[in-house]
Amino acid sequence: MIESDHRFRVTYLLTCEPDEHPEAKARDLALEQTVELPASCLTPDVARDMVGRIEALEPRGPGAYRAVIAFPAATVGRDLLQYINLLFGNISLKKGVLITDIEVPPVIRETCGGPSFGIGGLRELCAAAEPRPLLCAAAKPVGLSSSALANICYEVAVAGIDIVKDDHGLADQPSAPFRERVERCQEAVTRANATTGGRTIYVPHLAVGGGDLWNRLEVARKVGCRAVLLSPLLIGLDTVREFSHAADVAVLAHPALTGAYFRPEHGIAPEVFLGTLFRLIGCDGVIYPNVGGRFPFTRAECEAINQRLREPVEGLRPAFPIPAGGISVERVPHWVQEYGPDTILLIGASLYEQPKLRKATEALVHAARVATLSV
Amino acid sequence: MIESDHRFRVTYLLTCEPDEHPEAKARDLALEQTVELPASCLTPDVARDMVGRIEALEPRGPGAYRAVIAFPAATVGRDLLQYINLLFGNISLKKGVLITDIEVPPVIRETCGGPSFGIGGLRELCAAAEPRPLLCAAAKPVGLSSSALANICYEVAVAGIDIVKDDHGLADQPSAPFRERVERCQEAVTRANATTGGRTIYVPHLAVGGGDLWNRLEVARKVGCRAVLLSPLLIGLDTVREFSHAADVAVLAHPALTGAYFRPEHGIAPEVFLGTLFRLIGCDGVIYPNVGGRFPFTRAECEAINQRLREPVEGLRPAFPIPAGGISVERVPHWVQEYGPDTILLIGASLYEQPKLRKATEALVHAARVATLSV
Repeated sequence: MIESDHRFRVTYLLTCEPDEHPEAKARDLALEQTVELPASCLTPDVARDMVGRIEALEPRGPGAYRAVIAFPAATVGRDLLQYINLLFGNISLKKGVLITDIEVPPVIRETCGGPSFGIGGLRELCAAAEPRPLLCAAAKPVGLSSSALANICYEVAVAGIDIVKDDHGLADQPSAPFRERVERCQEAVTRANATTGGRTIYVPHLAVGGGDLWNRLEVARKVGCRAVLLSPLLIGLDTVREFSHAADVAVLAHPALTGAYFRPEHGIAPEVFLGTLFRLIGCDGVIYPNVGGRFPFTRAECEAINQRLREPVEGLRPAFPIPAGGISVERVPHWVQEYGPDTILLIGASLYEQPKLRKATEALVHAARVATLSV
Repeated sequence: MIESDHRFRVTYLLTCEPDEHPEAKARDLALEQTVELPASCLTPDVARDMVGRIEALEPRGPGAYRAVIAFPAATVGRDLLQYINLLFGNISLKKGVLITDIEVPPVIRETCGGPSFGIGGLRELCAAAEPRPLLCAAAKPVGLSSSALANICYEVAVAGIDIVKDDHGLADQPSAPFRERVERCQEAVTRANATTGGRTIYVPHLAVGGGDLWNRLEVARKVGCRAVLLSPLLIGLDTVREFSHAADVAVLAHPALTGAYFRPEHGIAPEVFLGTLFRLIGCDGVIYPNVGGRFPFTRAECEAINQRLREPVEGLRPAFPIPAGGISVERVPHWVQEYGPDTILLIGASLYEQPKLRKATEALVHAARVATLSV
């Protein structure tokens, strides 16, 4: 049967304890993530058609091995979550297994469909067709009133920022309830756009899953929001997949909760999780902690995420990388040059550390423009 | 204002690098998880009402410190996901922060509501009111036809198992499509019950989030299923919360994907994640990898999970711990004695390693009964 021979490859870095044999570890993985039984309990066809096949196993330094396992597409079917489950469901509970690369079965690519807007669509929303990085600021902190947050939105929008998003810690707190905040912030940005003739977009954070996600979307759509912020691992990857298909708004993704997977010897490499998977489920832009900010990502990891989000993949639009952290008026020329035009630069604390938010934003917008022209 | 003084405590084990100062690390955490700004950028009331307050900081071995931070309930509001986000959202991306204990704000406990069935309700479904551990087997492996899986269900049900669940790798694969599998397996269990006069329940795995979750529930309800298996971190914690409220079936939870959080120096302690949080969102039973099985949980971790699931908590029904792994006919008396009656013992490979499934299950059921009587 041709169907059962269809396989997709997953690449691992296996780190073995002194008493672990790399081949046994790879074989165990191939069984654990599919049949969850010892090979001796399987019928010959299940063993042949359902278990992962070890295609490569090469040493990579002391105790470390690169393994490539080809899994039958038939073990996944059409369900995204079963694909994720096969990748790292049970094995998350073991040790020394890092996923460094994945192939996406074609049927899962179809189920997911990737970004609905992508880089081109988000550029259109911001009226920024020309090749330049977009600039994004965050309305914060939690604890401010809706009016105070709306005022921040107004100031950065008037100063020419492309995107102003809710801080991802803004949900439905008493200090700025969701509906009130979204109405005021969008109104402030609309007013700023009317003054400048610009097309800043306001991106509210929908901090809920289940049916409430759709209720909050309706609030946001009603006042004219065209993009929202979601935290996929909090909300659920399948919910984001469904949402990005059906919601007619662009999706910016926040990496909340994902950091536990990013250790060097066990987990899922950041570019696979935040790059390949977040793009697959339909995120049009993906926020990640930039090198040099408050979080320990390396330059190579940042570049790898950028590449996974932008590189051509059949049937999937490219998505914007959104590095956050360490981006100030002084450093913006550096990042414009390093990361290139198809990037959204997210500026956080550096704007708030200056006395006048509007002036600080204007200086930043200006610096980015000059840097873009000189690239 | 009294409201803004309402706080809940989170306890951490902080592991400091040589250049990290424990107090600075704790202060950073208190800011990062709330306002996401340096203290210098905050107004006095936001600094007072919104930032976590360090209540304790004590050394715990070389470079390690126990920190207790009291967070204002006002930073969370009523949203479960914002509570989870505050616990470990951004900080997941840093290093050396392990959550060892949490208080649940009362409003979040109300939002969630905990198990709808709990230990008592699940006992009723299985007609097992008397104080004894329940026994659970898994229909597996993926790759078998629906009829073959249904046959397994029949054999273990006739042998007197309390619960037979889908292996969590069963989704909607071509080898046993969801609807067909659920119909046949439930029919087989109903037939077995008619023979024995027993009340075995069949628990299908709903491996999807979003709207499809409700479609699959309908299929399962229609044929008479009264409990389902979900993987909360795959499906989304908020989706499970909503589902457990509304679905009128008991929820057994699988720990797929959670293992990345269970490292000794960074993450969320297993008893907090699988115990406190899974119970909070409404899981009536929680599967975890038992000590001595294929996964590296310790005895103390297993006991701690059991305790969190069962201990009295105002407003939340207790839930069943479901240890899995290392449970065989020889070992079942040991676990009956060690874990006590309010436990579901999940038996996996050990049944399949024997030539006759029905005989093996009968021996197991018998051994558990004898052990229960002699406790």
